[in-house]
Amino acid sequence: MEQDRWSTGGEFLTFIYAFDNRYEKAPKELRDLLGGKGANLAEMTSVLGLPVPHGFTITTDACRSYLDSGWPSGLDEELEAAVVELERRMEKRLGDRENPLLVSVRSGAKFSMPGMMDTVLNLGLNDESVIGLADQTSDERFAYDSYRRFLHMYARIVLGIPSDEFDRLFDAAKELANVETDAQVPAELLRYLVSAYKTIIETTTGSPFPQEPMVQLRQAIEAVFSSWNGARAVAYREREGIDHRLGTAVNVQAMVFGNRDDNSGTGVGFTRDPSTGERGMFGDFLVNAQGEDVVAGVRNTDPLSSIAKRFPDVYDELVEIFQRLERHYRDMCDTEFTIEQGKLWMLQTRVGKRGGSAALKMAVDMTTEPEILLTREEALLRISADHLDQVLHPQFSNAEFAVLARGLGASPGAAVGKVYFDADEAVAAARRGESVILVRKETSPDDVHGMLAAEGVLTTRGGLVSHAAVVARGWGKPAVVGADSIRISERSFVVGSKTVVEGDVISIDGTTGNVVLGAVPLTSAEPPEEFQTLLSWADELRGDRVLVRANADTGRDAEVAREFGAEGIGLCRTEHMFLAEDRLPIVRRMILADTAADESDALEELRVAQRDDFLAILTAMDGLPVTVRLLDPPLHEFLPNTEELAVKDASVGLTAEEHKLYQASRAWKEVNPMLGTRGVRLGVIKPGLYEMQVRALLEAARICCDRGGHPVIEIMIPLTVTREELSLARSWVTGVLETMDTRGITVTVGTMIETPRAALRSDEIAEYAEFFSFGTNDLTQMTLGFSRDDVEGKMMATYIDQGLLPANPFKTIDIGGVGELVRLGVTRGRSTRPGLKIGICGEHGGDPASIEFFVAAGLDYVSCSPFRVPIARLAAAHALIALESEDGLPSQLSR
Amino acid sequence: MEQDRWSTGGEFLTFIYAFDNRYEKAPKELRDLLGGKGANLAEMTSVLGLPVPHGFTITTDACRSYLDSGWPSGLDEELEAAVVELERRMEKRLGDRENPLLVSVRSGAKFSMPGMMDTVLNLGLNDESVIGLADQTSDERFAYDSYRRFLHMYARIVLGIPSDEFDRLFDAAKELANVETDAQVPAELLRYLVSAYKTIIETTTGSPFPQEPMVQLRQAIEAVFSSWNGARAVAYREREGIDHRLGTAVNVQAMVFGNRDDNSGTGVGFTRDPSTGERGMFGDFLVNAQGEDVVAGVRNTDPLSSIAKRFPDVYDELVEIFQRLERHYRDMCDTEFTIEQGKLWMLQTRVGKRGGSAALKMAVDMTTEPEILLTREEALLRISADHLDQVLHPQFSNAEFAVLARGLGASPGAAVGKVYFDADEAVAAARRGESVILVRKETSPDDVHGMLAAEGVLTTRGGLVSHAAVVARGWGKPAVVGADSIRISERSFVVGSKTVVEGDVISIDGTTGNVVLGAVPLTSAEPPEEFQTLLSWADELRGDRVLVRANADTGRDAEVAREFGAEGIGLCRTEHMFLAEDRLPIVRRMILADTAADESDALEELRVAQRDDFLAILTAMDGLPVTVRLLDPPLHEFLPNTEELAVKDASVGLTAEEHKLYQASRAWKEVNPMLGTRGVRLGVIKPGLYEMQVRALLEAARICCDRGGHPVIEIMIPLTVTREELSLARSWVTGVLETMDTRGITVTVGTMIETPRAALRSDEIAEYAEFFSFGTNDLTQMTLGFSRDDVEGKMMATYIDQGLLPANPFKTIDIGGVGELVRLGVTRGRSTRPGLKIGICGEHGGDPASIEFFVAAGLDYVSCSPFRVPIARLAAAHALIALESEDGLPSQLSR
Repeated sequence: MEQDRWSTGGEFLTFIYAFDNRYEKAPKELRDLLGGKGANLAEMTSVLGLPVPHGFTITTDACRSYLDSGWPSGLDEELEAAVVELERRMEKRLGDRENPLLVSVRSGAKFSMPGMMDTVLNLGLNDESVIGLADQTSDERFAYDSYRRFLHMYARIVLGIPSDEFDRLFDAAKELANVETDAQVPAELLRYLVSAYKTIIETTTGSPFPQEPMVQLRQAIEAVFSSWNGARAVAYREREGIDHRLGTAVNVQAMVFGNRDDNSGTGVGFTRDPSTGERGMFGDFLVNAQGEDVVAGVRNTDPLSSIAKRFPDVYDELVEIFQRLERHYRDMCDTEFTIEQGKLWMLQTRVGKRGGSAALKMAVDMTTEPEILLTREEALLRISADHLDQVLHPQFSNAEFAVLARGLGASPGAAVGKVYFDADEAVAAARRGESVILVRKETSPDDVHGMLAAEGVLTTRGGLVSHAAVVARGWGKPAVVGADSIRISERSFVVGSKTVVEGDVISIDGTTGNVVLGAVPLTSAEPPEEFQTLLSWADELRGDRVLVRANADTGRDAEVAREFGAEGIGLCRTEHMFLAEDRLPIVRRMILADTAADESDALEELRVAQRDDFLAILTAMDGLPVTVRLLDPPLHEFLPNTEELAVKDASVGLTAEEHKLYQASRAWKEVNPMLGTRGVRLGVIKPGLYEMQVRALLEAARICCDRGGHPVIEIMIPLTVTREELSLARSWVTGVLETMDTRGITVTVGTMIETPRAALRSDEIAEYAEFFSFGTNDLTQMTLGFSRDDVEGKMMATYIDQGLLPANPFKTIDIGGVGELVRLGVTRGRSTRPGLKIGICGEHGGDPASIEFFVAAGLDYVSCSPFRVPIARLAAAHALIALESEDGLPSQLSR
Repeated sequence: MEQDRWSTGGEFLTFIYAFDNRYEKAPKELRDLLGGKGANLAEMTSVLGLPVPHGFTITTDACRSYLDSGWPSGLDEELEAAVVELERRMEKRLGDRENPLLVSVRSGAKFSMPGMMDTVLNLGLNDESVIGLADQTSDERFAYDSYRRFLHMYARIVLGIPSDEFDRLFDAAKELANVETDAQVPAELLRYLVSAYKTIIETTTGSPFPQEPMVQLRQAIEAVFSSWNGARAVAYREREGIDHRLGTAVNVQAMVFGNRDDNSGTGVGFTRDPSTGERGMFGDFLVNAQGEDVVAGVRNTDPLSSIAKRFPDVYDELVEIFQRLERHYRDMCDTEFTIEQGKLWMLQTRVGKRGGSAALKMAVDMTTEPEILLTREEALLRISADHLDQVLHPQFSNAEFAVLARGLGASPGAAVGKVYFDADEAVAAARRGESVILVRKETSPDDVHGMLAAEGVLTTRGGLVSHAAVVARGWGKPAVVGADSIRISERSFVVGSKTVVEGDVISIDGTTGNVVLGAVPLTSAEPPEEFQTLLSWADELRGDRVLVRANADTGRDAEVAREFGAEGIGLCRTEHMFLAEDRLPIVRRMILADTAADESDALEELRVAQRDDFLAILTAMDGLPVTVRLLDPPLHEFLPNTEELAVKDASVGLTAEEHKLYQASRAWKEVNPMLGTRGVRLGVIKPGLYEMQVRALLEAARICCDRGGHPVIEIMIPLTVTREELSLARSWVTGVLETMDTRGITVTVGTMIETPRAALRSDEIAEYAEFFSFGTNDLTQMTLGFSRDDVEGKMMATYIDQGLLPANPFKTIDIGGVGELVRLGVTRGRSTRPGLKIGICGEHGGDPASIEFFVAAGLDYVSCSPFRVPIARLAAAHALIALESEDGLPSQLSR
């Protein structure tokens, strides 16, 4: 093997790569080995030849080896050699009293991880080198302040000692000196602080602060390695689905000082505007300052253009570097740089984060910029679901705000309005022209008109598939649910010590789950022109390989879905038609019917009403498939709550009508309604119900057809468990079809696959099904034994925090369990009926990570709420690109 | 091919086999082709050469062909040929005016099926042959009565005409003749009836009654074929799990007349006593009578010994035939025979049904009788679970009784006692020395002392796994549940027009689900000596290939289980310890605890109590494994019902204590408790709970060990879904173990597999589990989405009746769904950990059909309630025999 790695004295290093190593392939592709930070430092140094302070990266291999079996043998020798080489290049020595070398030690995993140890600066300072630093800089105060900061940082980050006592002593020093700012503390007092800090360290750890720089360095490296398994880092990885085996790299780099004098400075810069996407450099700069001063926002920063005046040569160099970075990374880059005594040093770069509009604009722009020329696929991969969400919904602008409470972000976008606690009041206020936020413990069908009138919805109970969440998402209306620190009582709510009364203004962010007192300024939600361009590219790429449909229950929903590009309806829930205010009494009459004639009368009334509903939907979706699910929920959902009636019975008494309802509610009440009399089981006990629905649907299709339309109907049976159930249900449908004129109407019959048994026995069920639609909500509930109503709010957070689940399985599909059933369902279903059309209509149909799985599993379409359709179109395109490539890029991008 | 089949004029018949055909193998093995009845008729004729009236069997092939595509081509010709040959042999002709041949046409499927058409007698009678019959018998009345009966039977069975008008006319004739009995109606009037019956047939069907015997015959055969798909037959097959493709055979046989004169007679006989198993023939005989007269019980029958006096030669012949049948079938046979004018004819035989004691005695006896010499395996296969149930529990004696109501037979055996509606009253009555039947809508832990005091339990709600059912089975106490025609109000209940008040005596049969007003005499429940003999053979055969454990929660249960032969405890439910009257307040204190200290105090009290419980169990099961499941049910099961408290709150108000309980109940209440915060999830939110339980268990084991015992403990984590959960739970257990002295104690840690996900990902879960136990109750609920509390009572009967499910999946495992998960769980679990110990502790562990599946799936043990242990020992032996043979005998036997 050619010895093409950086080495000292002819020695070959195993665990350490210098930034200017001769790499066999582009180091930016070596993030697995070097971590993200190290890979980019090496890229800038060895490939681009940019001015980067010398340094080296200790690899993730070394970290893994350390975690498995302690400090790797040979690493000490390698470290020694690497430091010697670093000292040679910098012409300085660690710990030297004359000309000391200082280094930074920074963790750097493959993926950025806020839960880990980050940076120790100024390592190498000790009682000797601090004198050298004072000499070098001719600034004793600067030197001792650096030493003081280093001791504190070292104690906190490397030794894990709490900051309290360090802070207390520093405050005492400021008091003693009678000064306001940290920078005013004189060198003398800083010497005392240094001494006191060393004492704290010795008292707390039992050992003196290590004067030997190589000991400091080794301790710092060990601390970085160990931080990989810190509780916060582990929890973060669990949450983000990052592999625990990756390990972190450690970057050791010579320090440069932007705060050395007025001929120095530091800045952060983007190669184009990260919030608009406009070309041209963008960032902040401060003369005579360190990086943290820029970030902390204590001093007012200058724009990058200010560098042109003070450092014209550096400015030109920076412009050129920015251009080279963009060309090289073929993307907008984010950088940190320092000017030390007039010389520019690049400290870090990475592909920069950006807002939604900017992401869209840059992706499209870069397909035509000659120096970048992205392909359309590459452009699509630059866009994430979050980017689309940001341009589809208003967002909190960047203004500062104090979070009042936090819930689950259940329906994206932000809203501002006056608080109302009652649906009727909300409607009245909206009629008066007020913007309204409806606040409820939880919502029920009785609140639907209030939700419609409101700008946004806030509940204190329930999870991501609670009634409020599902309805709000269906309308694209912002919602925060399960904000359980809020206590509602009558016409006000309390959070901690704050009381909010009816009419007070609050702001909610349905993306983050934040609730804010007062009005936060919102960004507008007009998608830029690039939105349509990119989605049309996504559609081209998809062709008919994976279609995107919408879940829509009304003609209005269907119209919206079509505008957003839905290629059909994957789930039309007929129960929502039953819950309309004018229908509920009829539904109750049907349930309470004493005679077959009464039941049949009620069904007849419902038939007429449902026909009109269906007609609106079929008209809006003309020519595209519409999957209609026959009635699914347990009948007691249409009846009042038994406990409320029991209480009323015991106190003021019930009317005759209420008494009858109470009896029926009790009769239909179930211990576990989720696993009770619902779905096709309703059909089995009330076959007239399903026949009525099929008749209403076909009558609507007839009218649609006679008006010149082309209705395409898919009748879907819910909650099937056995082949025999579906065979029976199918016979009801065909029984009705035989009595109708179906010319010009395309009708197929299929089933939901939403019980584990249906997935396992899909081979048998496919005998009677022309299509399958996976109901992954219920399938998740049953496969994991997690009632979403009960578990999602209470247990889920604990489960994810403790790493018992990698993610909320109601949001992102549980591939090991539910996904396994989906795969079995697809394979076995198609073993009976090759080419069986299979889709998915659970909440997961709008989740990019889940869509990636569904596409890989061979599904023909995904169906999601109308407002998620654009996201699903993009995610499906991503998934197809991933299927065809091997490096699984989309998984990373969608993170 | 050698033409070894019976044929006429050299023609080879495809669909028809004569009884005396030269069969290639024993016809009794050809039940698939000939049906049970036909196979035995052919066996008696062609193999044994017994005197059987000639006849032939139309095969099940013909039936299947008919059902698929109508009357088989060529069958008419074959039928013609077969009839000609029959006429030749009998020297009579169908429809002949001089010497008519009459035949019986009988259905005969592989398995006896009460839902199907059974028999048409006297076919061949018409206006001509009736005269011949009158001449032959010199009895005009007999001839016209036969014709009248035939017309009625033909109309009803072949043409499907209701009996009403036939009966009405016959009653009119009796009135006209002013006679009491059918036999007294004179020939004249019978002629009129014949004429009137023909008119009814013509008016109803539009065609005259077919005079042509071959038309009658073909219609009768078609009716038998069609009856295979009759609604009742289909439902019966669904219920019994009989393949719909089998089809039925049709037997056509020359009639002989036991009612011809006083030199004739008819009888039914067993080759030994079917109720005691004693050797020697047993049965009933009537002179001058037809078979139906014997069965109907209108006349008093004579014992078979009476034949010896009147027909000494026939008697000797019958004795010899019975001996030959027993030797030939190697089992007790059940026969029908007729004597016509001094000549004996055998009409039917089959292996006879028998009671439990008789079955046991015969099986053991026949292993030593030289002419039979059953092997021990054969003897075991003669015994079914029902036989064991009959000898283990008292049963209703054969006395007549009127069923008052019917529920689900939830715990086998019968009981008689006075009705009490309240647990306290039941206890008081039992103390007074009364026998008590506790009658409740449903039972809860509050009723347990009353259930213990009662002889039996009757509930009006709930299914086979309701609280009442589970507790009663655990104690081996008879229970009928879900008798929903009973309406309870205060101190009485009403069924239809009958009212039963407190103190009235009723009888319940927990095997059949029957409830009877008054005291039904019971049989004793002393197992005969053969019981132990057979079970010891079963145990020998099992060796350690499949062990049988018991589900036991107390020391007493464990002792009973060991007496019944349990080889360990497969499930010790620790929640039952929490529900004891003296523990519940402590458990509630733990739940309500405001501070960690309060919670820990309560846990400490529970620890001491649980330790004593565990000590009793470990002592009773010393040396055998005891699987202890840590707390499983949702905490609200230990709290009062919220609705009751809400009502009380609204009416009379709550005490401070009640108010606190009410708050807690509301907080812990869940929408779907089955899928809520239970199992290991409790451990996650209250880790101290599981640690306390483990500590109590290990302390008990320590004491046990110090007393010279050998405790073998298996700690089982419930409701595991992910590997990570089990890893965490395992760490709690090992954390406690590290602090204890475990010398001499065997401890392993494993998990329930009771969610679909756990079964699917058993490969991952096995990394942390030393054993699995399938919890098939919950696995069934989640796999099928069937809440047993809700669905089992209401929907299940409908589902089984309509053929949507083959059986109650909570009783017999659903092989296609739940069974598939069990198979995957076993295979994947053992792929990670070869030799992983796997058992099952759901209700299915005591069900023979399910046990057969579990053994085939490779499980190491089954665990069931103590009283089912003998049945499980037998069923496991059956299953092993089945595994080793190919013909699947046990499946048939256990039906």
